[in-house]
Amino acid sequence: MSDDSKTKGSNQMWGGRFASGPAAIMEEINASIGYDRKLYRQDIEGSIAHATMLADCDIISAGDRDKIIHGLNTIRSEIEAGDFNFSRKLEDIHMNVEARLSELIGPAAGRLHTARSRNDQVALDFRMWARGETEKAVGLLQSLIAAFLARAEEHAKTVMPGFTHLQTAQPVTFGHHCMAYVEMFGRDLSRMEDCLARMNECPLGAAALAGTGFPIDRSQTASALGFTGPTRNSIDTVSDRDFALEYMAAASICATHLSRLAEEIVIWSTPQFGFVTLSDAFSTGSSIMPQKKNPDAAELVRAKTGRINGDLIALLTVMKGLPLAYSKDMQEDKEAVFDASESLELALAAMTGMVGDLTVNAKAMKKAAGSGYSTATDLADWLVRELGIPFREAHHVTGRAVAVAVEKGVALEKLTLEDLQSIHPRITDSVFGVLTVEKSAASRKSFGGTAPQEVRRQIRFWKKRLGASGNAK
Amino acid sequence: MSDDSKTKGSNQMWGGRFASGPAAIMEEINASIGYDRKLYRQDIEGSIAHATMLADCDIISAGDRDKIIHGLNTIRSEIEAGDFNFSRKLEDIHMNVEARLSELIGPAAGRLHTARSRNDQVALDFRMWARGETEKAVGLLQSLIAAFLARAEEHAKTVMPGFTHLQTAQPVTFGHHCMAYVEMFGRDLSRMEDCLARMNECPLGAAALAGTGFPIDRSQTASALGFTGPTRNSIDTVSDRDFALEYMAAASICATHLSRLAEEIVIWSTPQFGFVTLSDAFSTGSSIMPQKKNPDAAELVRAKTGRINGDLIALLTVMKGLPLAYSKDMQEDKEAVFDASESLELALAAMTGMVGDLTVNAKAMKKAAGSGYSTATDLADWLVRELGIPFREAHHVTGRAVAVAVEKGVALEKLTLEDLQSIHPRITDSVFGVLTVEKSAASRKSFGGTAPQEVRRQIRFWKKRLGASGNAK
Amino acid sequence: MSDDSKTKGSNQMWGGRFASGPAAIMEEINASIGYDRKLYRQDIEGSIAHATMLADCDIISAGDRDKIIHGLNTIRSEIEAGDFNFSRKLEDIHMNVEARLSELIGPAAGRLHTARSRNDQVALDFRMWARGETEKAVGLLQSLIAAFLARAEEHAKTVMPGFTHLQTAQPVTFGHHCMAYVEMFGRDLSRMEDCLARMNECPLGAAALAGTGFPIDRSQTASALGFTGPTRNSIDTVSDRDFALEYMAAASICATHLSRLAEEIVIWSTPQFGFVTLSDAFSTGSSIMPQKKNPDAAELVRAKTGRINGDLIALLTVMKGLPLAYSKDMQEDKEAVFDASESLELALAAMTGMVGDLTVNAKAMKKAAGSGYSTATDLADWLVRELGIPFREAHHVTGRAVAVAVEKGVALEKLTLEDLQSIHPRITDSVFGVLTVEKSAASRKSFGGTAPQEVRRQIRFWKKRLGASGNAK
Amino acid sequence: MSDDSKTKGSNQMWGGRFASGPAAIMEEINASIGYDRKLYRQDIEGSIAHATMLADCDIISAGDRDKIIHGLNTIRSEIEAGDFNFSRKLEDIHMNVEARLSELIGPAAGRLHTARSRNDQVALDFRMWARGETEKAVGLLQSLIAAFLARAEEHAKTVMPGFTHLQTAQPVTFGHHCMAYVEMFGRDLSRMEDCLARMNECPLGAAALAGTGFPIDRSQTASALGFTGPTRNSIDTVSDRDFALEYMAAASICATHLSRLAEEIVIWSTPQFGFVTLSDAFSTGSSIMPQKKNPDAAELVRAKTGRINGDLIALLTVMKGLPLAYSKDMQEDKEAVFDASESLELALAAMTGMVGDLTVNAKAMKKAAGSGYSTATDLADWLVRELGIPFREAHHVTGRAVAVAVEKGVALEKLTLEDLQSIHPRITDSVFGVLTVEKSAASRKSFGGTAPQEVRRQIRFWKKRLGASGNAK
Repeated sequence: MSDDSKTKGSNQMWGGRFASGPAAIMEEINASIGYDRKLYRQDIEGSIAHATMLADCDIISAGDRDKIIHGLNTIRSEIEAGDFNFSRKLEDIHMNVEARLSELIGPAAGRLHTARSRNDQVALDFRMWARGETEKAVGLLQSLIAAFLARAEEHAKTVMPGFTHLQTAQPVTFGHHCMAYVEMFGRDLSRMEDCLARMNECPLGAAALAGTGFPIDRSQTASALGFTGPTRNSIDTVSDRDFALEYMAAASICATHLSRLAEEIVIWSTPQFGFVTLSDAFSTGSSIMPQKKNPDAAELVRAKTGRINGDLIALLTVMKGLPLAYSKDMQEDKEAVFDASESLELALAAMTGMVGDLTVNAKAMKKAAGSGYSTATDLADWLVRELGIPFREAHHVTGRAVAVAVEKGVALEKLTLEDLQSIHPRITDSVFGVLTVEKSAASRKSFGGTAPQEVRRQIRFWKKRLGASGNAK
Repeated sequence: MSDDSKTKGSNQMWGGRFASGPAAIMEEINASIGYDRKLYRQDIEGSIAHATMLADCDIISAGDRDKIIHGLNTIRSEIEAGDFNFSRKLEDIHMNVEARLSELIGPAAGRLHTARSRNDQVALDFRMWARGETEKAVGLLQSLIAAFLARAEEHAKTVMPGFTHLQTAQPVTFGHHCMAYVEMFGRDLSRMEDCLARMNECPLGAAALAGTGFPIDRSQTASALGFTGPTRNSIDTVSDRDFALEYMAAASICATHLSRLAEEIVIWSTPQFGFVTLSDAFSTGSSIMPQKKNPDAAELVRAKTGRINGDLIALLTVMKGLPLAYSKDMQEDKEAVFDASESLELALAAMTGMVGDLTVNAKAMKKAAGSGYSTATDLADWLVRELGIPFREAHHVTGRAVAVAVEKGVALEKLTLEDLQSIHPRITDSVFGVLTVEKSAASRKSFGGTAPQEVRRQIRFWKKRLGASGNAK
Repeated sequence: MSDDSKTKGSNQMWGGRFASGPAAIMEEINASIGYDRKLYRQDIEGSIAHATMLADCDIISAGDRDKIIHGLNTIRSEIEAGDFNFSRKLEDIHMNVEARLSELIGPAAGRLHTARSRNDQVALDFRMWARGETEKAVGLLQSLIAAFLARAEEHAKTVMPGFTHLQTAQPVTFGHHCMAYVEMFGRDLSRMEDCLARMNECPLGAAALAGTGFPIDRSQTASALGFTGPTRNSIDTVSDRDFALEYMAAASICATHLSRLAEEIVIWSTPQFGFVTLSDAFSTGSSIMPQKKNPDAAELVRAKTGRINGDLIALLTVMKGLPLAYSKDMQEDKEAVFDASESLELALAAMTGMVGDLTVNAKAMKKAAGSGYSTATDLADWLVRELGIPFREAHHVTGRAVAVAVEKGVALEKLTLEDLQSIHPRITDSVFGVLTVEKSAASRKSFGGTAPQEVRRQIRFWKKRLGASGNAK
Repeated sequence: MSDDSKTKGSNQMWGGRFASGPAAIMEEINASIGYDRKLYRQDIEGSIAHATMLADCDIISAGDRDKIIHGLNTIRSEIEAGDFNFSRKLEDIHMNVEARLSELIGPAAGRLHTARSRNDQVALDFRMWARGETEKAVGLLQSLIAAFLARAEEHAKTVMPGFTHLQTAQPVTFGHHCMAYVEMFGRDLSRMEDCLARMNECPLGAAALAGTGFPIDRSQTASALGFTGPTRNSIDTVSDRDFALEYMAAASICATHLSRLAEEIVIWSTPQFGFVTLSDAFSTGSSIMPQKKNPDAAELVRAKTGRINGDLIALLTVMKGLPLAYSKDMQEDKEAVFDASESLELALAAMTGMVGDLTVNAKAMKKAAGSGYSTATDLADWLVRELGIPFREAHHVTGRAVAVAVEKGVALEKLTLEDLQSIHPRITDSVFGVLTVEKSAASRKSFGGTAPQEVRRQIRFWKKRLGASGNAK
């Protein structure tokens, strides 16, 4: 005999929020309308395309199609006017729209669900939404790159310290430093474009999981909704959230780049560094210390990395070990992507603003570039290159020159020729051609190097590349 | 000469959401009122305690104190009645309340901010909120444990298969299996209690980061707000988010336990297993397959693990490498905790409901327990224990007995004594005392073992422990 | 006066592992030779290409070049023969090779480091290594897809239950289910290929961070080492670990797919499901329960998801907020990628083995496919399609038919025509053409649907695609 | 008829590493001896305790016990002498030891496995290992706290800038800043102690999963192995990895603290800040820039956060959704914990070394503390406190005073009394008692504030607390 007894009254224990017991809990955990209402536009567009195709394939009548489309357009207007009454009892956006359509047009509403299921409908809506966010990321990345290109052009010759371990290493140009970010965000852009291409297949027609016996035309709906074609396997179609995972992985890498830039802005804005001054628009002040500028926006951008990485891990964890095809776990896909995309877009826009607006304190940069005997490697290279001195000996000679400069309390280029010749007699005054920070930077003309002419070459490359994608104006 | 030039017009590039340029972006990234308004109650309670202390220490007058308290109570009523006009321009809950207090009571409002800063105020509010969520977790865990204790008591003797690798290994009792979850959630409870004890120190009085020169009494405010005492270092106080991290770490481990339980419910509910039937309250059906029950709630609980782990990683990542004391990055602390706690509480309540409501199909469990020759180890142990046969030989004999049973197509206990004696002549009919699944389970009487009497002993232990903490009724 | 005092003797406190104090700790935390020795081949190849280019550009002599190349080849032989004495004092693979080269060829060894720094050298070695792993992933994914294509072809008509919520939903074919995995692993393959294309730029010549003043030819070394060209920004080149992050992100998504497959194998292998039987090669047994087969390999594959996700988070976290250019934090990049790639490759190989070797129990699958009235939607669709009955009414009729079948204790297709006509008089015996599981599956002929002819179409598509990439044999 | 056909020859596709086919793959994925050999000591100790108990309970003979113990001691000596031949065919440490014991003592070896299974054996060994690592963390945290207490004592009066947003906010003392870390690491210590208490229960006797019918004494083995008692549920015992998860969660929070300290050391070591100088032991230099010191150790500590967080996520992900009791997935538990503990211990030791050894540049700190009108809030507080001026007006007066100081190019305390009285006539010269950085710091005497006397009070508190735990010398 099977055991049917139950623990009674356990719901008294929940109290507060769940006082009304199982029904309240189930509704709260099950309903998604609180967040998936964002997908109303995708839902309606998808339904219009589906209804049109059904009529073209003679699965529903032209009359039903027209009623459906009219009804859906009405619903869209109601939602956009704030007149739509969302119901949590109806769980999600799909059921909310469906129920209202029934009210508006009666039985014809039911025919819309021919050869379609909630599984392929939700896959479609969410994929269209993800596609939109990926396109936004592409646009925002192009703007951020354009902002950097503008600053790089202005500052192709502005000298600053190149750091390793946050210690001054060698002089570089600020333009060159900007172009490092162009490369990073350029890779992000390219990742987003690849992601977009891979996700741009239409789920509609996969039905519950097995496809359908109705003679539908999946290519037509795919094309109507801007996809390159239909997906190729109906089980995969309703089980797959790769498009969301890949978008979030690309977002995490991009957020990592943004966090590095944010960190630099925070450090550069300290009184100790003083390399840049943020505009008032992107900093906050103090009522009693009027000179104070806190880099709040940069700090917040830095922090967004955390939530974007968290969102990625959230969805990877949700999908781990799920048997095919659809499991309800997958309803937890949306909020992670909503949160990641909102954070990423805000961070990209804020950084574009900050980069465009910040004041570059070229004097402070140059002064710092010259500290720490940052041209010592230039001296060593000169000894190797011009005098043919072996590398190890050149290092030894350089070390002694720096020691003399330290002792005299002067920069390397302020040593006299006599000072230098006392260390190595073959040194000539052409050595001074590499010892100042500007000359050091200008000498590094290898492809991708920090010399202004190289920086300008790479700026041209990127302007052309952005232009070629037809996206930058 | 420093370089002050700027890239103009870059804001045209943002388009859409950020069309109005830097101001819109900064407001959107900087304002927290959209989510920190949840903290209004903590903010007001904290301010009342602070004002009371300031007056008791003669830092403000009794008259000002009374005005402040009256004003704050008014604001609380306004908020709870939905009459409060939250402003995003005022950024956060603290400034919103402060501005309204000024409107209501004039200059006395300003005195509330004596010997206090937004830094210790936000640390207080958020810590009180986290404390409340930790207490809720404690209560919900106690309810879930109570639900399991009730099922364990009912099913102390109900036999089911104990699995390893999801393959039948040895018979256990369902009560014993329930008690495994009691141990898990018992550890979660204990972790939450430790977390609660560690976080229960009052930040108020740390001021901006250095403490204050006003002669305040931090013990008074600590005590008024239910803390065990004030924090011991003002820099740490405004920099620390350990209480949130520890809560979320405990939540992640608890969510992992919940996901294991959810997985078992999903598997046990398949027609293939059929061990349990979910109540209608916690499953969804199909309009055309009336016998179908989808374990949606269990799947959603399983998925919550993802977002809770994600929230933990989010805050760990935000805090990584932040210099002391307060950085704006830390504003990203709240939403992660809000999301994790809401998810955890919902998952705990849903599981308490499911565990209490599900129907146990004892017949199906027992049948499965006997499959796969699950008492083979009992036979081997009997040979060692009763006949003193060495372990390895006992295994060999058992293997042969199983082979005979397979060949005859019967269960081990259906072999005849002759069958068994033909394999090993010293076997007596007392062996049948361990070969059925009930007898196998009943024989495992070691401390913590699956025998019904042991299960009942552990139920008594836990009832006493829950009772002793003064929390379970 | 600055304060120079120090706490003395603190090293006594460390005890045990760190008894010898700061030097031991620093060596242990700083040295990477314990793991980066794996990169010896990349290091030597890169150096040979660099030396060749230096000679071609007249930066070093042909004689030095020849000595260098001969020395490096000797070192490679020593390492491969196990005769190389790795030293932790020399920290990393680069210094170990460099020191040995000095011993072997004297001062010419020093010239190898002209126009190169450890920063671009390590970036090169690691990138070449990552490229190799990405190529391995591509190859292993092709093999896994091929294994699935073979099973899909065999089982294009084998019927099994299609699940939603792990409850039987509609009949599908096992071939179709296999092809869902082909789609998943096909996307993984395409992601790996994109990743490979993006990373295939040569870091060599970026030098410390600023490029170099020596007249080097970066295109020559890039080409010699199989890259499509040199990187475009020297600061970015030594700061960037995107190639590792992108590889690990792609690996995490792939591991998620593998975990889903592993979960299915674990569930399908239970006595309750019995859909597949693993080969002895990929399962473990029990000495006393000879019929038992534990799916250890599948469980281990499922678990690898954890460490691969963990490795991704590890490197994302390391890179968060790092200022440009090189920081020592980045030394923590290698072990994460080593671990992730080893895990991924092993998991892919194990799954290819399991998929190829497992026995499909078609009978058990078919029986399960027919349970739970899985063709109810076929009946409803037939009513809509053939009789033009509105959707909602069709659902109502179907629900009544199922109820009759439940009452009679038979499958839907075992109802008589009279039974069906008593529910709806217009039903004809052509309805039986969709009520068996085979006919249901065969009827779903929409593009990407489960009908055998559709499955075969997609098999052809994938065979062609794999063939076209020139990779599958 | 079930389908038995297989894809042949698929193993040819693997190539390279897996050329020998399924057997090689299975051995590689399944064997754990490569890493679990670390547990040999725990394995042998556990077996000795088990054998002793078995004899005391008359389950085995005294003679067998003696042979077993002698054999195990021999094996321990062999392993420690490097004479033990580990075999991957034997999979893990348990089977390696067992097989060797059989060789050494014959059939008695088999009796050791009475009333025990590999499941409780592995749970025991790993838990003992985790306990050891947690104890190490406790010891290392005590050393780090002691190092900070020593520096705090030296520098109770040394003034430095207190930062918010990395901008100078208010003067604090370096001793106070050190004590903030004492609080953080003090919480870490307390978390590790709680974790230790919770994990210290003995798994031995849980057997495979159901307990055992042998009359064992679990309390005896628990006590012999230093546990507070046996675990209470045998299913939970073999399924549980909470002890590892909790340890890693505590490690992640601790690593977050270490990363913040590391970040500060990196920033403070820049020429721009110059607050501290690292000892040679914990920095690396440059052969040609002798004054350069790279904070490599601090950067590596900062990076360890990544792998520790990654290890936590790895194990959380492994455990997600695992049905009870033992699944092979759980074999993936060890490497994550090995890696996290090794990283944490190294990072703690390195930081203890750095903190103890670094030179504090008090002059640079003091100079920076006075920049940015950091005592403006002191002036405002003075106006409120001494003159009873309302807060808002006090801010206004202060803002004007700062503006005058900016205009005159002097610090606030260098304004004359006339300057100040021209802004507000009631200001007296007692105001100068709060305007220097030393006086500002000294004035913040609230509990936990930055005043030297408060810092010393907290030092005394912590010395007593550490002493009381009997751990600090």
